[in-house]
Amino acid sequence: MHLYDMVKAPNPRRVRIFLAEKKIEIPTTQVDIPSGENLQPAYLAINPRGVVPTLTLDDGTILDESVAICRYFEALYPNPNLFGRSALEQAQVERWQRRLEFEGLFHIAMIFRNTASAFAGRSLPGQGPSLPQEPSLVTRAQAMLPPFFQAVNAHLSNSRYMVGDHFSIADITALVMFDFARWIKMPIPTEHSATLRWYAEVSARPSAKA
Amino acid sequence: MHLYDMVKAPNPRRVRIFLAEKKIEIPTTQVDIPSGENLQPAYLAINPRGVVPTLTLDDGTILDESVAICRYFEALYPNPNLFGRSALEQAQVERWQRRLEFEGLFHIAMIFRNTASAFAGRSLPGQGPSLPQEPSLVTRAQAMLPPFFQAVNAHLSNSRYMVGDHFSIADITALVMFDFARWIKMPIPTEHSATLRWYAEVSARPSAKA
Repeated sequence: MHLYDMVKAPNPRRVRIFLAEKKIEIPTTQVDIPSGENLQPAYLAINPRGVVPTLTLDDGTILDESVAICRYFEALYPNPNLFGRSALEQAQVERWQRRLEFEGLFHIAMIFRNTASAFAGRSLPGQGPSLPQEPSLVTRAQAMLPPFFQAVNAHLSNSRYMVGDHFSIADITALVMFDFARWIKMPIPTEHSATLRWYAEVSARPSAKA
Repeated sequence: MHLYDMVKAPNPRRVRIFLAEKKIEIPTTQVDIPSGENLQPAYLAINPRGVVPTLTLDDGTILDESVAICRYFEALYPNPNLFGRSALEQAQVERWQRRLEFEGLFHIAMIFRNTASAFAGRSLPGQGPSLPQEPSLVTRAQAMLPPFFQAVNAHLSNSRYMVGDHFSIADITALVMFDFARWIKMPIPTEHSATLRWYAEVSARPSAKA
């Protein structure tokens, strides 16, 4: 197996933290997204979609989408469990994964890709259509993030981790989300004490350095 | 258990097809989203987020997000398997689920909620911020759907189902996606013969009527 990775980008970091929690080490190659290395022929020969992270298997199969890569490792190396143990826990991990993606990460990425100068003219990841940056998307995303951050804080007021007392991939996603939000100058609000308490605990885990 | 459902809406249909494939029957109440019933006090008392579908468990736990509800049932009733059998199949189901959501369903919903008169002034599902309909989101989504439909057709040229020869929740998501796309006048292009072959097979399953 081989992982194509980019140290600074949020989605590859989700995979790296996941692997660190499971103490899995695999060979890795860095791909520089801001300079467009992921859209050059050499990388497109590995993954025609041009997205990072990509995992290549020994039989030549390629697997992309960060959470799909994590599920693959979860099935191969079930301990420690990171996708939930009981039926309800698995459902709640999925529920928070979706909320963190659709109501959080997605909007942060929308703001970042539609404002960062490195992505002018290619506001979508990978080999998507070349669309110009669109200011109305930024305004919209900026309106939607604060109520979601508030919902997360309310949730964490009654929950040690994103899903009860069980550390899971939902915590990894939330950690990466809040760190990504700092790029767009939307740090955890100082009055969100439950989120800050959770953040201190999760970011102190050795895996958070991955 | 009790399921709050809306017969016409795409996300609740994903759950209904999933339950039909597993031959699970549970009591159901219809909630009328276009008239705003999901945002009335009676429904918000059941689920403060105001989203449909919502599953309530006998101990009072509420579970929303369609795929989270499906995962709950998958863990309780593993047969027939709908989330993948091997590690790689599970990963590929996750991968297609994500692509169908982020590159397909999401944009269709974006076009629908930003054009349908019933959603003027509330272009987001549930209890989100009240945002006006935004034409630039529609233009953008319209640019992004055709390349994705093309990618799906290319994939299905070499694959019976979305993930190899195994019918899974990814086929349910894709079926619901293509049916939803007809609402915004983007049917499967007549030249996408692989998608049409797949669609004929999947939509002929008894569960498709759910």
